[in-house]
Amino acid sequence: MTSHDCREAGLTAPVAAGTAAEAATGDAAFLRALLDAEAALVRALARTGRAPASAAEAVDLAVADGSGFDTRSLALRARSGGNPVIPLVADLTARVREVDPAAAEFVHQGATSQDIMDTAWMLVAARTRTPLLADLDATADALARLAARHRDTVMVARTLTQHAVPTTFGLKAAGWRALVLDARDRIASVRLPAQLGGAAGTLAAFTNDPGDPGDPSDAGDAAGGVRTGDPGGPRAVQESGGLGLHVVAAYARALGLAEPALPWHVLRTPVADLGAALAFTAAALGKIAEDVLTLSRTEIAELAEGTGGGSSAMPHKANPVGATLIAATARQVPALASVLASSLAAADERPPGAWHAEWLPLRDALRLTGGAASAARTLVAGLRVDTERMRANLATTGGLVATERLVAAFAPLLGRGEARAAVERVAARVTAGAATLVGAIEEEPALKGRYDAARRAELADPAQYIGATGALVDRALGRRAAQIDQEGATA
Amino acid sequence: MTSHDCREAGLTAPVAAGTAAEAATGDAAFLRALLDAEAALVRALARTGRAPASAAEAVDLAVADGSGFDTRSLALRARSGGNPVIPLVADLTARVREVDPAAAEFVHQGATSQDIMDTAWMLVAARTRTPLLADLDATADALARLAARHRDTVMVARTLTQHAVPTTFGLKAAGWRALVLDARDRIASVRLPAQLGGAAGTLAAFTNDPGDPGDPSDAGDAAGGVRTGDPGGPRAVQESGGLGLHVVAAYARALGLAEPALPWHVLRTPVADLGAALAFTAAALGKIAEDVLTLSRTEIAELAEGTGGGSSAMPHKANPVGATLIAATARQVPALASVLASSLAAADERPPGAWHAEWLPLRDALRLTGGAASAARTLVAGLRVDTERMRANLATTGGLVATERLVAAFAPLLGRGEARAAVERVAARVTAGAATLVGAIEEEPALKGRYDAARRAELADPAQYIGATGALVDRALGRRAAQIDQEGATA
Amino acid sequence: MTSHDCREAGLTAPVAAGTAAEAATGDAAFLRALLDAEAALVRALARTGRAPASAAEAVDLAVADGSGFDTRSLALRARSGGNPVIPLVADLTARVREVDPAAAEFVHQGATSQDIMDTAWMLVAARTRTPLLADLDATADALARLAARHRDTVMVARTLTQHAVPTTFGLKAAGWRALVLDARDRIASVRLPAQLGGAAGTLAAFTNDPGDPGDPSDAGDAAGGVRTGDPGGPRAVQESGGLGLHVVAAYARALGLAEPALPWHVLRTPVADLGAALAFTAAALGKIAEDVLTLSRTEIAELAEGTGGGSSAMPHKANPVGATLIAATARQVPALASVLASSLAAADERPPGAWHAEWLPLRDALRLTGGAASAARTLVAGLRVDTERMRANLATTGGLVATERLVAAFAPLLGRGEARAAVERVAARVTAGAATLVGAIEEEPALKGRYDAARRAELADPAQYIGATGALVDRALGRRAAQIDQEGATA
Amino acid sequence: MTSHDCREAGLTAPVAAGTAAEAATGDAAFLRALLDAEAALVRALARTGRAPASAAEAVDLAVADGSGFDTRSLALRARSGGNPVIPLVADLTARVREVDPAAAEFVHQGATSQDIMDTAWMLVAARTRTPLLADLDATADALARLAARHRDTVMVARTLTQHAVPTTFGLKAAGWRALVLDARDRIASVRLPAQLGGAAGTLAAFTNDPGDPGDPSDAGDAAGGVRTGDPGGPRAVQESGGLGLHVVAAYARALGLAEPALPWHVLRTPVADLGAALAFTAAALGKIAEDVLTLSRTEIAELAEGTGGGSSAMPHKANPVGATLIAATARQVPALASVLASSLAAADERPPGAWHAEWLPLRDALRLTGGAASAARTLVAGLRVDTERMRANLATTGGLVATERLVAAFAPLLGRGEARAAVERVAARVTAGAATLVGAIEEEPALKGRYDAARRAELADPAQYIGATGALVDRALGRRAAQIDQEGATA
Repeated sequence: MTSHDCREAGLTAPVAAGTAAEAATGDAAFLRALLDAEAALVRALARTGRAPASAAEAVDLAVADGSGFDTRSLALRARSGGNPVIPLVADLTARVREVDPAAAEFVHQGATSQDIMDTAWMLVAARTRTPLLADLDATADALARLAARHRDTVMVARTLTQHAVPTTFGLKAAGWRALVLDARDRIASVRLPAQLGGAAGTLAAFTNDPGDPGDPSDAGDAAGGVRTGDPGGPRAVQESGGLGLHVVAAYARALGLAEPALPWHVLRTPVADLGAALAFTAAALGKIAEDVLTLSRTEIAELAEGTGGGSSAMPHKANPVGATLIAATARQVPALASVLASSLAAADERPPGAWHAEWLPLRDALRLTGGAASAARTLVAGLRVDTERMRANLATTGGLVATERLVAAFAPLLGRGEARAAVERVAARVTAGAATLVGAIEEEPALKGRYDAARRAELADPAQYIGATGALVDRALGRRAAQIDQEGATA
Repeated sequence: MTSHDCREAGLTAPVAAGTAAEAATGDAAFLRALLDAEAALVRALARTGRAPASAAEAVDLAVADGSGFDTRSLALRARSGGNPVIPLVADLTARVREVDPAAAEFVHQGATSQDIMDTAWMLVAARTRTPLLADLDATADALARLAARHRDTVMVARTLTQHAVPTTFGLKAAGWRALVLDARDRIASVRLPAQLGGAAGTLAAFTNDPGDPGDPSDAGDAAGGVRTGDPGGPRAVQESGGLGLHVVAAYARALGLAEPALPWHVLRTPVADLGAALAFTAAALGKIAEDVLTLSRTEIAELAEGTGGGSSAMPHKANPVGATLIAATARQVPALASVLASSLAAADERPPGAWHAEWLPLRDALRLTGGAASAARTLVAGLRVDTERMRANLATTGGLVATERLVAAFAPLLGRGEARAAVERVAARVTAGAATLVGAIEEEPALKGRYDAARRAELADPAQYIGATGALVDRALGRRAAQIDQEGATA
Repeated sequence: MTSHDCREAGLTAPVAAGTAAEAATGDAAFLRALLDAEAALVRALARTGRAPASAAEAVDLAVADGSGFDTRSLALRARSGGNPVIPLVADLTARVREVDPAAAEFVHQGATSQDIMDTAWMLVAARTRTPLLADLDATADALARLAARHRDTVMVARTLTQHAVPTTFGLKAAGWRALVLDARDRIASVRLPAQLGGAAGTLAAFTNDPGDPGDPSDAGDAAGGVRTGDPGGPRAVQESGGLGLHVVAAYARALGLAEPALPWHVLRTPVADLGAALAFTAAALGKIAEDVLTLSRTEIAELAEGTGGGSSAMPHKANPVGATLIAATARQVPALASVLASSLAAADERPPGAWHAEWLPLRDALRLTGGAASAARTLVAGLRVDTERMRANLATTGGLVATERLVAAFAPLLGRGEARAAVERVAARVTAGAATLVGAIEEEPALKGRYDAARRAELADPAQYIGATGALVDRALGRRAAQIDQEGATA
Repeated sequence: MTSHDCREAGLTAPVAAGTAAEAATGDAAFLRALLDAEAALVRALARTGRAPASAAEAVDLAVADGSGFDTRSLALRARSGGNPVIPLVADLTARVREVDPAAAEFVHQGATSQDIMDTAWMLVAARTRTPLLADLDATADALARLAARHRDTVMVARTLTQHAVPTTFGLKAAGWRALVLDARDRIASVRLPAQLGGAAGTLAAFTNDPGDPGDPSDAGDAAGGVRTGDPGGPRAVQESGGLGLHVVAAYARALGLAEPALPWHVLRTPVADLGAALAFTAAALGKIAEDVLTLSRTEIAELAEGTGGGSSAMPHKANPVGATLIAATARQVPALASVLASSLAAADERPPGAWHAEWLPLRDALRLTGGAASAARTLVAGLRVDTERMRANLATTGGLVATERLVAAFAPLLGRGEARAAVERVAARVTAGAATLVGAIEEEPALKGRYDAARRAELADPAQYIGATGALVDRALGRRAAQIDQEGATA
C-alpha cells in the first residue's frame, strides 16, 4: 500500500486524529475491507462447490498483506467507472494470476461492484464499532463513578440560562450516562449484513441453470475441470444451493457479518440505521460537551477538563478543548445522517447517485463519532469537579433558588395565593440586598413565627431542597449497559 | 376566506390534507394533549394523596370538551414566555376555579411548562402513530399480495439507469415491503414516555420535606384541610412516594405513556428517536415512489397509479400524483430529523433554544410522514401493473440483458476469456441490428454448435434468467410484521 | 376550540405568533397571492390583445375580496392533483362565470398550475420581505446606537468560553450590526421573478401559430368575437408578441415582480437564493441570541432582556425569552434551506417531487425568519446593559486578561522568552491568590523597577488594553445600510 | 512534506479524484496556505515597521518549499490544543530560528490561531475557486454551443414524468447554461477576506500603547534592536497605524485577499456565503445530471455520455457515470452548507465548537463541488445527442402532446368547452389505437372540415408546436458570463 501522493493527514478533523476510528476508516483500511470481501467471495464459492479450494487459497495469498495495491491509483481510476472496485478487480485478477492462473477465473465471479463496496463498508463499520463501543462503555463507567461519588453534591440547576432550583451533580452525571447508554444501545443494535446480489440483486450468476442438474462447475467437469462438489448434495442444490442463497450465507459467515434476507442494493436500511445511530451518538456526546463548556466558563468554573488546552498568548487560560471538539462533531453528524437517510429513496435496482452519495458522509460520520467517543472518554476520565464552587454559585442568588419550596411550605398554612405573595415580598427584599433570606422570612409579617428557627433555616437552605435527586441517581445507576456481544450477535 | 383568525388550512402540505395524521398534529389536537397532560397531573396528585379526588374531578370537567380554550390566543400569548403552557395554565386555573375554587390550587402543581409540553408531544406522537402504523401495515399487506402475485413476473432490472439483467416485479415488491416493515419496526419501537420533573428535573415539588413524616398535605391537615392520605403508607413514602417517583408513575399510567427512568428535559432520546424513525419511514416510502415514478414514465409505462392526477391542459396525461407527493415528503423529513437529532446537545437543565427548536420539525415530520403513509397505502392498493409492457421492455435490447448468462454458460467450454470475447462479438452484431441474439450465437464460430437449438434459445431468453428471485420473494414474504402492541408495550 | 376546521394557530412557532411574517405567509395570504396571480394573467392577456379588457375586469371583480374561496376545501382537493391550483381554477372559473360568462374562457388561459403557484410564492416572499427588511433595518439602527453609546465600554472578551483579553461592548454590538446588514443585503438582493411558461415552459399557448398573421384572438374575430388589438403591432408580434414574451412581461409588470429571462419551472434559482438568504439571516440573528443568552447567565449578568419572561414557579428568574426563540429559529432554518437548495436538482421540465418539496420549507423559512427578525428588533431595542457588571467581571481574573500586554511590554527589555517566563511566574502568584497583579509585578525580580509605578499600574489595568476597538467601531458604523428599493429594484 | 502515514487517497470521493479541486483542498495545500499566512503576517509586520525586513525574509525562506513540516504530525498534535496552528507555530519558530534567531521572535506575533486558520481557508477557497470558475465557464460555453446547435431540435417535454408538450433540446441546454451562469455568479461574488484580529479580535497586540509615542519596536530600539520605521509616519500611526488597522491591510495585500472591515472570528459571513454558493453550484449541476440520467435511460436514449462507464458483467451497458457522480455530489453539498450556515450563530469572541465544525464541511464542499464542475465540463463536452430518437420519442403518444394546441385552434370556432370535449374524444380514439391523430380529427364530426388538410396536418404535428423556444434560447444566449476578475475584484 504505497501512498506516494497523500491527500489527507487529518488537519480538518482533529477530534479523530490518531484515534482507532481514524485508522479504521482510512483508505488503507477501506482497501483492506475491499480485499477481504473479494477473498471471502472466492472462499464462499469454494465452500459451495463453485470454485476449487486452491482458488480461494490463491486469492487469500494475493490479498494477504495488501501490498501491490495502490489506493491512490485506485482512486484515480475510480472516476471513469464511478467506483474503485472496477480497477481493484483488474489489479487483483492480475495478482492472483501470478500466483495461480486458474484461480484468476474466480476473482469477483458473480458479483457486482456494489456487492464488494457495500460489504467493505459494513466491515469498516464493524471495525470502527469495536473501539467506538469500548469508548462509550468506558465513558459510561466513568460517568457511573462520577454520579455515585457526587450523588449528593449540590449545585444549582440552570434553566433558560438562569439559576432555577438546586440539583446535584450526581443527577447531571447520571443523565449524561443515560444518554451514553442510549447511544451505545443504538450503535450496538445496528445490523451489519454482508452484501451479495450480483448485477441486479437476483443472484443469477450463482443460480444453477434450470436445465442443469448441478451447478456451473458441472460443465467445468465436462471440459476436463475439477469437479469440486457441493457439500449440500443435489437436494440442497435444488432447495437453496442451486439458488445461490447458500453462497450468500457462506460469504457472510466468512466475513463475520450478518446474513442479509435480501440483497440490499436499494434497500438501504443498514446505512440509514448507521447514520441515525451515529448522529444520535455524536449529538448525545454533544450534550456532555455543552454542559462542560458552560460549567467551565470563567465565571462559573464548576468543572474543568483534566488537561485543558493552553494558550500561548494567554497563560491564564485553560481551554476546554475536548468539549470543544466534541461539540464541533455534534454539529456535523446530524447533517451527514440526513444524507444517509435520504439515500433510502434510491431508484431502480442500483441507483445513479444515491448510493455514491453515501460513501463520504458514512466515512466521516463513523470517523468523527468514533473520534468524539474517544475524546469523551478522556474528557470524562479527567474531569475536575469543584464542589466548593458549586456550593458558592448556588448561593449567588442568596437562597432565592429555594423560593419554590418556601411557597410550598407556607401554602398549607396561608393558602397558596397568600404564601406566594409573601414569598415574593421576601424575594424582593433579598434581591434588593436589604436582608438575607432567613432574615427576610423572619421580618415578613405573614411568615413570622410560623415555623421555628431551625426549620426556617432549613427551608431557606438550597442545599436541602434537592428533591428526588438521590433516588433518581440510584435508579439510573441500576441500568446496566446492554450486554451484547458486539461483533457476534449484532454484526 | 371565512376563518379570519385561521392561519393554516394545509395548502403547503397536500400529502397530509385530510389525513388522520393532519388531524392528530393540528393545534387543536395539541391543545387537547396539553389539557390531557394537565388533567393527568392532578389525577396523579390525587392518586398519590397530594390532592383531593374532587380536584381531579374538577379539572377533568374543566378540560372535558376543550371549550373555552382558544388556540390562537394561546399562540399569541406564548411569545412573551416562550411557550403556550404559561397562558394555558392561567386559562385553565380560571376555568377550574369556576368549577371548584379549592381545586384551582392544584392545577399544574409541581410541574414546569416543559413537563406539559413534552408530555403533550408524546401524546400527539402516540396518537399519530396509531394511524401511521395502520397505514404501514396495510401498505405492507398490499405489497405482500403484489409480490406473491408477481413472484414470477419477469421485468428488466435497471442499474445506473440502464437495462442490466432480468429480474421480477415480485422481487421489487418484496423489497419495497421489506423497507415498509423496517420502517414499521422503527416507528413501533420508539419509546414514548411521559415527562414530569418539575422546575429542573429534580421532582422537588413532589418530594416530601425531610423534616416531615408525610407529604405537604400534612401541613394542610394542620390548617384544617382534608387529609387525603398516601396509599403507599409511610414506608413507601420513604422509599419512593416521598421522593415523587410514584407521582410520575401515576401520571404516566393516567396518560397511557411509558414511565420515564429520569426526567428527560435535556435527555432528548424520545425526540431524536422519533425523528430518526420518521425520516427512515418517509425516505423508505420514497423508494417506492421513486420506482413508481420511473416505471410510470411514458416510455416505460410498466406501472400506473390507479387514479392518476389528470391535467386540464393535457388530456393524455395521467400524472403519478401519489408518488410525487410521497417523493416530496422523502426530501423533507431527513432535514427535519437532523434538527431533532441536534437537539440532543441541549444545555443545562432546560435549554434556551434547542428545545423550542423541536416543536415545528417534530410536528411536520409526524404530519408529513403520516400523510405519506396514507398516500402510499392508496398508491399501492391501486397500482396497475402492465406485465405485457414489462415483457416488451425486457426485449428492448434484443436479449442482451442475458449476456452475463451466455458468458457463464460458455465459459466452462471455452475458458472465461474466450467466452467473454465471443459473447462480445455476438453483442456487437445484435446491437448493430445485424442479427437476433439466437441468430448471432449460431453464426459466431466460437459458439456455433456448442449447445443444441433448444438450449441456445433458452440461453438467449431473458425470461429464463431470473436467478433466485423466486426463492428471495418466498424468503422475504416469510417475514411477519413485528407483533407489537402499539399503544401498550412501546408507548 | 371554536374553529373546527382550523388546523394551525401557531402553537409550534411562537417566535412568529402575531407577527407580520406570520400573517404574510398564512394560507389566507397564500390564497390572496394565488388569486392575484390569476388576475394578473388575465390582465396581461388583455394588455397584449389576447383577451378583452372586460374579462380582466370580471376576474378582478371575482377575486377582489377573496370571499367565496375556502382554503380548507382547496387543501383537501389539492391532494388528488398534487397542488391547490387545480381546484382553485375550477372555483375561480365558476365565480367569474357568474360575473361575466364570456370572461370565464380566459381564466388561467395558457398557464400551468406551477406558473400560478410559483408566482404566488414570489408574491408571498415579496410581501414577507417588506416587514422583514424593516425589522432588520430597525435592528441595525438600534445596534448602531448601542455600538456608539458603548464604544468605550470595556468588557472581557471570551474565547473557547474562557476570559481572554479585554474588548468593548461597542465592538460586540458593531459586529452584530455588521451581520444584520449582511443579512439585509442578502435578503434584499434576492431577485423575485414572476413565473409564466405554460405546460412545459415553452409559452406555446401564448405563441401565435406560424400560419396566422395575428394572434389567437383573430380566430375569435372570425367567430364574431371582439378584436382586442395588439398594441405592439404586427411587427412586434413577429418579434416577441407572437412569441408570448410580452405576455410574460405584462404579467410581471402587473404583479410588481421581476420579469424572468426564462420560465424557471426547473431553474430554481429564486427559491434556492431565498433559502440561502433566509438561513443566513436566521443564523446571523442567532449570533446575537447566543451572545445575549451567555451574557444573561446568572453568573455573568452583563445583559438582560428588557422584558424577560417570568417564571411562575421561580420568582427570581427573568428568562431571556426573545433570545431563546431566536436561537431556536437559527437551529431550524439552515436545515430548511438545505431542502430548498436540493430542489435545484429538479428533473425534466417540471419535476415530480422536488418542486412539491419546496412549499413547506419555504413557507416556514419565511415565517420563522420574519418572526425572528421581529423578535430581534424588540430584543435589541430593550436590551439592558450592565456596565458595572462588565467591569466587575473583567476583574475576575485579577487582571490576568492583560498578561498578553505585559509580555509585549517587557519583551523589548528582556527578550520575548524571558519576558514570557517572568509574566508566567507573576500569573501563577496571582492565580494562587498570593498577590495582586501590580504587586506581583513589583515583586518579580526580572520585572522589578523596569517601569515606573504609574506605568506598571497602567500595564496591569485591563481597561486600558482594548486595542483598536474604538477605530473598528468607527469603521463599522461608517457602513450604511444598502439603499435598495425593496419592492422595485430587487423584486 | 513527508507523509509516511497517509489516511486518504480519495476512494470515497471519486468525483474529485485527480482534479485540481482535490489538490487545492488537500492537507498539503492547506499546510501551504497556513505557511503562506504566517509568512504574510511577518511581511505585514515588516512593512508597517513592527519587524525588521530581515525577519520577513527569514520566514519566507523557512516556509519556501514546505519541507520540514509534517502534516501528519501536525494533525496528531492538533488534538490537544484543538487546531493545527499551535504545533505549526512551534515547528515554524524552530525552523526560522535556524535561519535567523532574531527573526523567530516575530513568528505569529500578535496573531491567534484562528487568524491563521481562517486566512488559510480563504486562500484554499481562492485557489479552489480559480479552476472551479474555469470549469463552470467552459461548461457554460459548451452549453451555449449545444443550445445554439439544437435551437430547433424538437423533443418532448416531460412533466411529472409524463410526456407533456413539445419543446426543444436547445431550450433545455439554454436552461442548464442559465443555472451554470447563476452558479458562476454566486461563486465569483463571494468575498474572501484575510483574517487578523489577535486573541479576541481587538488587534490589541498591533496597537501601540497609549503611553507610547510610537510602536512596540521603539522599545526594541532601546534594547538595541533595529528601528524599522513606520512608512505612514507618526500621524498615520495615530490614525490607523497605531491602531493596527494598517497591519491588517498590509497582510491582506500580501496574500491577495480582501481586507476585512472587522475581524470576523465570530462574524462568519465568508464561510456561510461559501457554503451557500457551493451548495447552489453542486445542486445546479445536479439538474444537468438528473436530466442526463433520465434521457440516458435505455427506453429513452436521447442522450449518452461520450465515455460511458462500461460494465464488465454486462457488455451492452454504457453507464452515465459522469452524471451519476455529479448527482451524488448534489445530494451531499446542501447538507454540508447547512452546517456552515449554522456556524454563523457562534458564541462569544471565538466559539467553542461552531468554528471547529466548519473545517471538514468547508473542505468537502469545496472539493466535491470542484470535482463536480470538472466532471460537468467533461460530461457536457462529450454529450451525444440523438435527435432521431428525440423525434421518435415525441411521436410515442401519436401526436397527443399537441392536443393543447388543438383545443386552442378550435376554441375560437367552437367555444372552448366544446373544443375541449371534441379534442378529448379525438384523444380517446388515438389512445385506443383506433386512428391516427390526423385521421381522428377528420373523423370527429365537430372538427371535420373546419380547417383544410394542410392546416390539420400542421396542427397535428408536434414538431410545429414549440412555442417561443427559439426566442427564449436567443434571449438566454444573450446573457454573457459575468466578467469578473476572479482573484482580484472579488477576493
